[in-house]
Amino acid sequence: MARIVQKYGGTSVGDVERIRKVAERIKAIRDEGNELVIVVSACAGVTNELIARAKAVCANPSEREMDQLLAIGEQETIALTAMALHGVGVDAISYTGAQAGIFTDKVHTKAKIKTINAKPIEKDLVAGKVVIVAGFQGINEEGQITTLGRGGSDLTAIALAAAVKADKCEIYTDVDGVYTADPRVVKDARKLQEISYDEMLELASSGSKVMQSRSVEFAAKYDVIFEVRSSFNYNPGTIVKKEIAYMEKVVVRGVAVDKDQAKVIISNIPDKPGSAAKVFRALADASIIVDMIVQNMGRGGIANLTFTVPLTDAAKVQRTLLPVLEGLGGGEVAIHENIAKLSVVGVGMKTHSGVAATLFQALADASINIELISTSEIKISVVIDKAKSDEAARVAHAAFELEKL
Amino acid sequence: MARIVQKYGGTSVGDVERIRKVAERIKAIRDEGNELVIVVSACAGVTNELIARAKAVCANPSEREMDQLLAIGEQETIALTAMALHGVGVDAISYTGAQAGIFTDKVHTKAKIKTINAKPIEKDLVAGKVVIVAGFQGINEEGQITTLGRGGSDLTAIALAAAVKADKCEIYTDVDGVYTADPRVVKDARKLQEISYDEMLELASSGSKVMQSRSVEFAAKYDVIFEVRSSFNYNPGTIVKKEIAYMEKVVVRGVAVDKDQAKVIISNIPDKPGSAAKVFRALADASIIVDMIVQNMGRGGIANLTFTVPLTDAAKVQRTLLPVLEGLGGGEVAIHENIAKLSVVGVGMKTHSGVAATLFQALADASINIELISTSEIKISVVIDKAKSDEAARVAHAAFELEKL
Repeated sequence: MARIVQKYGGTSVGDVERIRKVAERIKAIRDEGNELVIVVSACAGVTNELIARAKAVCANPSEREMDQLLAIGEQETIALTAMALHGVGVDAISYTGAQAGIFTDKVHTKAKIKTINAKPIEKDLVAGKVVIVAGFQGINEEGQITTLGRGGSDLTAIALAAAVKADKCEIYTDVDGVYTADPRVVKDARKLQEISYDEMLELASSGSKVMQSRSVEFAAKYDVIFEVRSSFNYNPGTIVKKEIAYMEKVVVRGVAVDKDQAKVIISNIPDKPGSAAKVFRALADASIIVDMIVQNMGRGGIANLTFTVPLTDAAKVQRTLLPVLEGLGGGEVAIHENIAKLSVVGVGMKTHSGVAATLFQALADASINIELISTSEIKISVVIDKAKSDEAARVAHAAFELEKL
Repeated sequence: MARIVQKYGGTSVGDVERIRKVAERIKAIRDEGNELVIVVSACAGVTNELIARAKAVCANPSEREMDQLLAIGEQETIALTAMALHGVGVDAISYTGAQAGIFTDKVHTKAKIKTINAKPIEKDLVAGKVVIVAGFQGINEEGQITTLGRGGSDLTAIALAAAVKADKCEIYTDVDGVYTADPRVVKDARKLQEISYDEMLELASSGSKVMQSRSVEFAAKYDVIFEVRSSFNYNPGTIVKKEIAYMEKVVVRGVAVDKDQAKVIISNIPDKPGSAAKVFRALADASIIVDMIVQNMGRGGIANLTFTVPLTDAAKVQRTLLPVLEGLGGGEVAIHENIAKLSVVGVGMKTHSGVAATLFQALADASINIELISTSEIKISVVIDKAKSDEAARVAHAAFELEKL
């Protein structure tokens, strides 16, 4: 007997038929004698539909009311999932975020979990009930409903796993696990049996869309081991944990491509102390996330700055920086949207040299030009031409022999 | 300045366009300096859609989970209504039943309100906010969501009006008010300016579908004066209160027809003490509401019982009574579905004789046969042929000169 937390995403509970399938799946695991806490998301599409209705009544809806509205998506799926379990003879009870005692701070639409009072859930588990909890939502100390932002249901599952001291935490999604590269692009990509939190974090920040970084960070902080797997089949997924047995031997664990980035070049800034700080302060104030910064000294006291931003923020960058550059006494902004960021990630890099050389050689052999480079302890990222990014993923994957993992 | 509770039903908030119209309406009343508590129902159709989904995942959904599910209907409309008010520049805040402190007993799907902690609402009212409250729902002392059953949103409004000591309570619906008869049947039916709780109760139990009896009973108990009016126009509605100024002069206030009744005749029951009790105990145990009971002694120790039941329960009556009659040693059950119950209602009847005679004469003049009669202090009901019920309503309306009210 084990205590297991499972999370089912929006496509897994996308309609009543799928909810019934999920119930069958839960029943099988319950029948093996396990204690189960099930976290569910809203049906795929429901959240967007609710947002559209909100925008139809008010151009700029308040975040408090948005949370009040969006929370109904999960409240629907928890009730339907509990009913579907009753339908197959499993004793189950649903909990909203508030009922589950998931207390957050007061920041609506992107609240942080502060504490979980897991006593009522534990009582129901001991009484033999499957407990269904609404993902993505909580309650603040004033009794107002809050939501946790993107990836919030994963976070709910991992936080609950920590709170109820679960033996296992399983994140069911529409992919099979974490791969060495996107299998749609790299045909011989391999599913990883295990991956470390750090590697998972670098992959998430490098455009691999399996999970949001904050959930992985939370798991790392509370040392919650979790498995990413598919609810549409019974294949084992990828286990994410702190240390991996063969970590020393394998240098690179995966290749990720992020096509949703733009490259920003600011040229001819008068090179005075604090110029760069002013640029990046303005971008931060506009909530634009900046990555891969390179500064070049030009000739004659002129500096150039290059960095990447999310593609969706590219227009905002232009609007934000023009007045700043005016204040600095000059400079032009150029945005290049046809770029991609390719990253190779692996904890083993820490103790192995030559990873950068291998990557650069592989790209050079394929005549792929590198426009920017940035590195961390366990990641190397390069900016390349977007049109060549699929080919780049394949040659990098082959260069590190990831198909042999 | 007045403190006003308004309730908008499911058709009034049936889509985003209508929610915006309701917001404009609320703004106008707010701009006059009034304090407002707004109770809203779920969008028309949403509750039925949710019930359909529940039945699709489970043949017999648990009532606790049903409440958890159905409560999202109003949670959607409160958030959208608050947003729509923000959109027109009105400060507003939404409350679920739980947030509004509406505490109920533990009976899921038809909970009774026990207490309301109105302090948070009053604080927001004093702070100048329009408070939007989800109708139909509450919370029990274990923190579980409950719903109040049919007509629950009216009940929420009336209970809140009592709790916040409102000066006015307005129930917005899709009819203009309470009429002397159904205007679709009786062309010269008049809208009543005022009606007493007792009359309203008798009309409700006589098939007039403006409001459920329990809301009127609650209003009578706490002496909450309320107005029934339409959200689609600005006509004054009907005010429902304890005493009406001209009550003494007017004998009959309205004619109601209930076509959803069936007549049950049980004949040839051996007439032993307790036979009738056994019949009605069995019907009560099957939750069948019985009305208009008449017992006739037949010849030679044989009794006949006649009564009416809701049409939807007719088949259940047969199933329920056959074993009982067997136990009593005989008797047959006959169900007549082609009947209607016509009622004339008026507090003035108490002190006026001749109402029954006037009604019976009017029906006789129109060759309408009376099959059963029952009377209360302020109501006379007759069972007649369903095919003649519209004509009966017209002749009764004319006989009491209700078009002159």
